[in-house]
Amino acid sequence: MVNEPHSASNGSASSRSDGSSSGSESSKDSSRCSTPVLDAERHERLREKMRRRYESGDKWFSLEFFPPRTANGAVNLISRFDRMGMGGPLFIDVTWHPAGDPGSDKETSSMIIANTAVNYCGLETVLHMTCCNQTKEEITGHLQKAKHLGLKNIMALRGDPIGEEWEEEVEGFNYAVDLVKHIRCEFDDYFDICVAGYPKGHPEAESYEADLRHLKEKVSAGADFIITQLFFRSKTFLAFMKDCQAIGITCPIVPGIFPIQGYHSLRQLVKLSKLEVPQEIKEVIEPIKDNDAAIRNYGVELAVSMCRELLDSGMVSGLHFYTLNREVATTEILKRLGIWKEDPRRPLPWAVSAHPKRRVEDVRPIFWASRPKSYIHRTQEWDDFPNGRWGNSSSPAFGELKDYYLFYLKSKSPREELLKMWGEELMSEESVFEVFTCYISGEPNREGHKVTCLPWNDDPLAAETNLLKEQLEKVNRRGILTINSQPNINGKPSTDPIVGWGPSGGYVFQKAYLEFFTSSENITALLKVLKTKKYELRVNYHIVNVRGENITNAPDLQPNAVTWGIFPGREIIQPTVVDPVSFMYWKDEAFALWIEQWAKLYEEESPSRMIIQYVHDNYYLVNLVDNEFPLENCLWQVMEDTFGLLNCPTEP
Amino acid sequence: MVNEPHSASNGSASSRSDGSSSGSESSKDSSRCSTPVLDAERHERLREKMRRRYESGDKWFSLEFFPPRTANGAVNLISRFDRMGMGGPLFIDVTWHPAGDPGSDKETSSMIIANTAVNYCGLETVLHMTCCNQTKEEITGHLQKAKHLGLKNIMALRGDPIGEEWEEEVEGFNYAVDLVKHIRCEFDDYFDICVAGYPKGHPEAESYEADLRHLKEKVSAGADFIITQLFFRSKTFLAFMKDCQAIGITCPIVPGIFPIQGYHSLRQLVKLSKLEVPQEIKEVIEPIKDNDAAIRNYGVELAVSMCRELLDSGMVSGLHFYTLNREVATTEILKRLGIWKEDPRRPLPWAVSAHPKRRVEDVRPIFWASRPKSYIHRTQEWDDFPNGRWGNSSSPAFGELKDYYLFYLKSKSPREELLKMWGEELMSEESVFEVFTCYISGEPNREGHKVTCLPWNDDPLAAETNLLKEQLEKVNRRGILTINSQPNINGKPSTDPIVGWGPSGGYVFQKAYLEFFTSSENITALLKVLKTKKYELRVNYHIVNVRGENITNAPDLQPNAVTWGIFPGREIIQPTVVDPVSFMYWKDEAFALWIEQWAKLYEEESPSRMIIQYVHDNYYLVNLVDNEFPLENCLWQVMEDTFGLLNCPTEP
Repeated sequence: MVNEPHSASNGSASSRSDGSSSGSESSKDSSRCSTPVLDAERHERLREKMRRRYESGDKWFSLEFFPPRTANGAVNLISRFDRMGMGGPLFIDVTWHPAGDPGSDKETSSMIIANTAVNYCGLETVLHMTCCNQTKEEITGHLQKAKHLGLKNIMALRGDPIGEEWEEEVEGFNYAVDLVKHIRCEFDDYFDICVAGYPKGHPEAESYEADLRHLKEKVSAGADFIITQLFFRSKTFLAFMKDCQAIGITCPIVPGIFPIQGYHSLRQLVKLSKLEVPQEIKEVIEPIKDNDAAIRNYGVELAVSMCRELLDSGMVSGLHFYTLNREVATTEILKRLGIWKEDPRRPLPWAVSAHPKRRVEDVRPIFWASRPKSYIHRTQEWDDFPNGRWGNSSSPAFGELKDYYLFYLKSKSPREELLKMWGEELMSEESVFEVFTCYISGEPNREGHKVTCLPWNDDPLAAETNLLKEQLEKVNRRGILTINSQPNINGKPSTDPIVGWGPSGGYVFQKAYLEFFTSSENITALLKVLKTKKYELRVNYHIVNVRGENITNAPDLQPNAVTWGIFPGREIIQPTVVDPVSFMYWKDEAFALWIEQWAKLYEEESPSRMIIQYVHDNYYLVNLVDNEFPLENCLWQVMEDTFGLLNCPTEP
Repeated sequence: MVNEPHSASNGSASSRSDGSSSGSESSKDSSRCSTPVLDAERHERLREKMRRRYESGDKWFSLEFFPPRTANGAVNLISRFDRMGMGGPLFIDVTWHPAGDPGSDKETSSMIIANTAVNYCGLETVLHMTCCNQTKEEITGHLQKAKHLGLKNIMALRGDPIGEEWEEEVEGFNYAVDLVKHIRCEFDDYFDICVAGYPKGHPEAESYEADLRHLKEKVSAGADFIITQLFFRSKTFLAFMKDCQAIGITCPIVPGIFPIQGYHSLRQLVKLSKLEVPQEIKEVIEPIKDNDAAIRNYGVELAVSMCRELLDSGMVSGLHFYTLNREVATTEILKRLGIWKEDPRRPLPWAVSAHPKRRVEDVRPIFWASRPKSYIHRTQEWDDFPNGRWGNSSSPAFGELKDYYLFYLKSKSPREELLKMWGEELMSEESVFEVFTCYISGEPNREGHKVTCLPWNDDPLAAETNLLKEQLEKVNRRGILTINSQPNINGKPSTDPIVGWGPSGGYVFQKAYLEFFTSSENITALLKVLKTKKYELRVNYHIVNVRGENITNAPDLQPNAVTWGIFPGREIIQPTVVDPVSFMYWKDEAFALWIEQWAKLYEEESPSRMIIQYVHDNYYLVNLVDNEFPLENCLWQVMEDTFGLLNCPTEP
């Protein structure tokens, strides 16, 4: 009961953060961070997270992807990371193909895909790396680059030798164990290292026993855990695991699960891995080999029952899935096993990056709520990230955003779809109002197309924004072109499915926020309203045009906290602020999106393009905060009053 | 209406922080910081605060004190600083008497008194300094020491020459202007400098005009403002002020007001200052010269009407009072003039120190709520002070508190009074319970003495604690010896007279907190209660004995914010936390107070002393936080359940 002097013990009240959703104008769900189940996990390395799971008996899974072939494939893969990340994988891994220039800066390289997963999708990521046919310098270069990008986990592999003949190089890297040793020698304990295990023995090994000894060597050299090659029967894995334990391998061994998703992919894989498909499986598959859906259904059934056997054995708590970059089968298996997180808790209201530099980050300006990847991109050079307080104007500068076409910042929709949504031909500013209104209402536009994204919001309306839908629709119709908003919240439980975030047992709060573009005529009326006694001390505003001419009533350029949470046994967390200084950087991006994402869809000099250019040149970007969070949101009344003034312009 | 690109303007919503009160177990009022009316002021130097007042036309006052003769006088003077500080002086000043070793470390030196005013009473302070008969090195030494102690303002004076003959030293400091030049030369712009002005001319000056020229030289040499010698008629000052302006003196000139408080002090002063008392005043005073009260009443009337004339002239916004270290007359004059702050707003719930190093400090552990001077003392060597977040165990170490007898940490009550309150002779532990109970209830003890302080609380019960009085009384009777507590608050206006703090227009929140000593038998029952499902996730506890053996359920030694405020246009402020690491330092102090302040009142080996020693050796110090601030405080139910368990010890 009583502990040592001066060392307090942890008791029973460890606070968990598990399960809820939300967003602002657009859903933000796509980039929601799902990995950190416990707050503390954000500061843990992968092997610690894994150990915590093994100790608690909590089941987990991980997902393997290969790098895409094309830039478009990269855009799609990143969306898939965002979607599959929501299920709560402990980590994902990205394979390494020497022929594909895997360490380069190309958007399809293993290195860049892994970098995107960590930094922009907030996923704990393992980067594969092979060593044969490479110099020590090349390998060290790859590892240094990975470290610089914030990657902390390497799957150390030998890789396939070039050509048929296998020649050992005296000074070179001939086996995965050489790479493991090299990583530990050059990078000490920085990386967590994973190695491959072969439940049936490596096809090139002298024997199953010899291969087990090789595996033990890899672990002794510094590997932290093992992921196995695929297998078709649970007993294959369980026997392998016992054999590993028998020769003293004590690190985690994660079974690699290959859901059969099609006849050809299975044949291909079997050829590469030199594994034999059991007769009972062949017998089912051969007759239905041209029916993809039937094969996939069978594959799902097979995987589910094998996974159940593994989990029920009591020897397995985590499962590693070879996804083949596909979603449906793996997701279904995970859901049926009950280990897909249906309601992932958000540790913070925005997507946390998994870069080690950003571990303490817990405050961001609200402006990038729907563009978190752009925020991460523009702040990637920062040395420190704000934590606890945003602080005032001393915050470091934002990088310029000229790279609208980086695959991880790009719209998921192709040009033709965008034209359908935003209009093949614009007639007037009112055509623009209609696009915004349709995005909010969910109603199809004149041409019958639903507007599912805007340049500022690449995802459909967030659940939270739905709470404001009626009022938003009304003001957009009148040319108040909203791009970000949140309702006021006066202490809802942190487990609230719409606005909750953070550990359970807490309360979350918000000040009402509204951000929009509007014409200078509207601004004149709005300012008159904002300066009335009713609002002058209650509503903080920042109004700016593309040239940076701005009007504000914020005292001393101080940030205004607009989202905060109170939790048991914690300090206050205030994850979003309206910061006057950052707003000027956001303004550049928000205005540029009119041109980069919208105007450029049209021919130069075309009327449509000129309309967007006019809006860009003449409209103002406005943000409003209602500081009275316990009262009814007054921002809609501000809008009503503004419209009233516009209707009767002669009144005082 | 529209400003320059990329430079946001300040608008109308400058948030003010003006007026309210509170405390925890003891009133804490005594050391409440009153100086910063605006949050921003905390970061401003005296001359900026003064300019802000001149620009806004807000009236202000300052108070002059001289160093005490005895250590006991120092204790009393510090209490007076605390009380008079509540009225909201813009600054106080401490005079310099070369004969009294003014730059030494004695508790009666000018230097140490000024240091105490700044650091422990949170008062903007001006230290007088004279220069004649001192070497450059001595003067530089004094200034360096003042700077090191956090003093930022010097009143530069010549001082009286020793003996009758006045001999100029060629290289020495012969006039105040030499000191002004020296300060500016050696310390650049670090200090704000005040100089003396003589409305009737300096008695030693060749002429009134020559004296004005000397004054102008002092200002040109770098003085920031002028305080005048006393005078008896407002027109004397107003004429002087016009003459100053006529020769180009543009800095603030503050009239020195001398409230006549007694016949002898007036005669003494007149003799020293070589001023003549006007006939009309003499005629009133002479007949009543033995009636102190009558003279004081007359002096108050006289001062009030002269001050009114000065303020009404439109040329004066601040008044400087020669208090002669007395409270009654000056306080009454200020109240009658309406410039004594009746309801000083607290910028934070605790007394802010005015040391420049501590300007950003806005988080403290709740434990020292009633002992803020001890907290400041134990953290005086810190280089950085927490701001925004307390942070976790990396916080710097606290200094040991062995100096219980430093005058600014000492009880205001002498030993005899303490014995009357706490018992000349204790019979048992229950005698101790009674002392605590009487302190809470306000009822006299068995011997008929009220208990107005405890070793942990040198002031009577705070207004806020009064809200909990009934429950506190009940538990103290049962041996739950409370030393700190606060009720839960779910969003009261920041202007609330009892629990409010910070700028107006905001909302303040608290988690319920209770801290007490109790026996190990009670701890056993309490822990059983705390570990029931009802409380285990709701209540955080830390329990420790004098040997540091501790029990807690705090996750990962993280601090728990227990007071926070939400304000318009600001980040969240969380001024008090329950920090598990600091609690171990506080525990040393809290236990030591049993012995140092209480046990040592009795003879060694006496039964009374042995009872206190027993409590010290065997009791536990406990703190409890109810995290559910929106619900009814459950800590009283925890106590009830504990008592229930103690009454029926056999039940599960």
